[in-house]
Amino acid sequence: MEKGSVEVFSPATVANVVCGFDVLGFALDGPFDKMVIRKIAKKGVAIINKDDYNLPTEPAKNVIGGALLALLKEVPEEIGFEVESTKLIKPGSGIGSSAASAAGSVVGANQLLNNRFSKEELIHFAMCGEEVASGSKHADNIAPCIYGGIILIRSSSPLDIISIPAPPLFVTILHPQIEVKTADSRGILKKQILLKDAVTQWGNVAGLVAGFMKNDYELIGRSLVDVIVEPIRSILIPCFDELKNKSLAAGAIGGGISGSGPSVFMLSKNEATAKDVEKAMIAVYQKSGVDFHTHVTTISNQGVRIK
Amino acid sequence: MEKGSVEVFSPATVANVVCGFDVLGFALDGPFDKMVIRKIAKKGVAIINKDDYNLPTEPAKNVIGGALLALLKEVPEEIGFEVESTKLIKPGSGIGSSAASAAGSVVGANQLLNNRFSKEELIHFAMCGEEVASGSKHADNIAPCIYGGIILIRSSSPLDIISIPAPPLFVTILHPQIEVKTADSRGILKKQILLKDAVTQWGNVAGLVAGFMKNDYELIGRSLVDVIVEPIRSILIPCFDELKNKSLAAGAIGGGISGSGPSVFMLSKNEATAKDVEKAMIAVYQKSGVDFHTHVTTISNQGVRIK
Repeated sequence: MEKGSVEVFSPATVANVVCGFDVLGFALDGPFDKMVIRKIAKKGVAIINKDDYNLPTEPAKNVIGGALLALLKEVPEEIGFEVESTKLIKPGSGIGSSAASAAGSVVGANQLLNNRFSKEELIHFAMCGEEVASGSKHADNIAPCIYGGIILIRSSSPLDIISIPAPPLFVTILHPQIEVKTADSRGILKKQILLKDAVTQWGNVAGLVAGFMKNDYELIGRSLVDVIVEPIRSILIPCFDELKNKSLAAGAIGGGISGSGPSVFMLSKNEATAKDVEKAMIAVYQKSGVDFHTHVTTISNQGVRIK
Repeated sequence: MEKGSVEVFSPATVANVVCGFDVLGFALDGPFDKMVIRKIAKKGVAIINKDDYNLPTEPAKNVIGGALLALLKEVPEEIGFEVESTKLIKPGSGIGSSAASAAGSVVGANQLLNNRFSKEELIHFAMCGEEVASGSKHADNIAPCIYGGIILIRSSSPLDIISIPAPPLFVTILHPQIEVKTADSRGILKKQILLKDAVTQWGNVAGLVAGFMKNDYELIGRSLVDVIVEPIRSILIPCFDELKNKSLAAGAIGGGISGSGPSVFMLSKNEATAKDVEKAMIAVYQKSGVDFHTHVTTISNQGVRIK
């Protein structure tokens, strides 16, 4: 890379992780967005799209712009950034496309500023980018995108980010080519829930964290149950129940909706099983008539990478 | 001990553990109940109380009786048990007095049957004893009483019991001499809660499990927050807020209501702090006019002990 510029690879992420609604997320090894970020002599952000998604280039209306403008507020020097963005994570897929733009841009910019900001500060800047996309500041894609691995956001305010160690996990993703807006997907949730369902859910969240940290695949699987959000959101995803049942039959440990959908993820112990799960998912969707993409990847302990 | 009899020491336990309502519990090193259990040649249970609590001796109305009758249903031989019970854990204190009777009696009886039943089966029998005391089968005191240590009950049906490793933790207990019936303490809870509060709670439950398993005392402390049950139940406990604030000021990591109360527990990193916390608690209660007892002990990895 030329001096004063960095090339950034920013990975897709899975938020919520079934029972961990709004508190858990993990980073994938791929797909990832690419960005080239250059320091420029003028305060502000210039965005050049190198893909066909036709995203707005006006900084205040763009996720990258929102994140970098927040960062630049804390930079006294008269500098700015030019960003060439190549999105390989499809916007609206539910695997953290906007988080990849937001997190990747601030991590890259920070490198050009000799890493003067902490990871927590970068999360705050990136959350301002997420706000442009979804109207709300949330960290459940951004935190794993920046930290890598499995991340617990114990609290959003004040921010409390905890890395959860885990055994190797392979991930199969199916992305149906339908649009599910985060705002809609959140709007259909009930504001009140039964205490007894909440108890079931926090038993599962506790079991999931314990399963990850004990390298106990069976416990991870038993804990991947969501009695609150999935029963409501899954109606927006064609063939969800069949997709899940056939994936489990093919050997998946468990899985569910990625973020607010429409993508569905499944975890497996090894690559061969993750590929069997992919075949099972493809078989379900081929007869559904809905276009789709699939990915087989891993949970990656590395977040945003810089070259 | 004479042949055909065992001496049993059954410890007090703390259920709920602040944010872990109905799913977490841990065993204390003390206080504990003592029982002498003898195998007798006649089907049935005979209970001899060696204390002044005047608990019913009719087996179907006694926690020990309820638990042992459930166990005896699975024993084909024409045998029974005589139990001399010395309760040192005050009934109604909220530190698992009935669970100690239920769990201790079945663990002791199982020893006299050459340990033919698994720990899970013993939990089921003991839950039948708990039902006599509280009208509902629950395992959040019984499971830690039998297993020792910190226990997650991920699911009650089917039973899924997970041991959570943790660093050394000292426990200060204050038991106000007031009566809080479990049924009343459960009755005042709301059946419906806000989803956003539930998210806060499962973030904390996940943080607490991660904190225990990472030996991270600060994370344990930050996670010991209950936004759902404590705000309601604490109104039944005199001076609760002051007790908690003064304990934290004296160095406690965190704490809250033990089970459904009235006892309050606080965790500390070392014994000296736990004793400072005890002094702070005593100072609050001495001016309250309510009689009380205190204990300073540890979380113990040993459950029911047999001599």
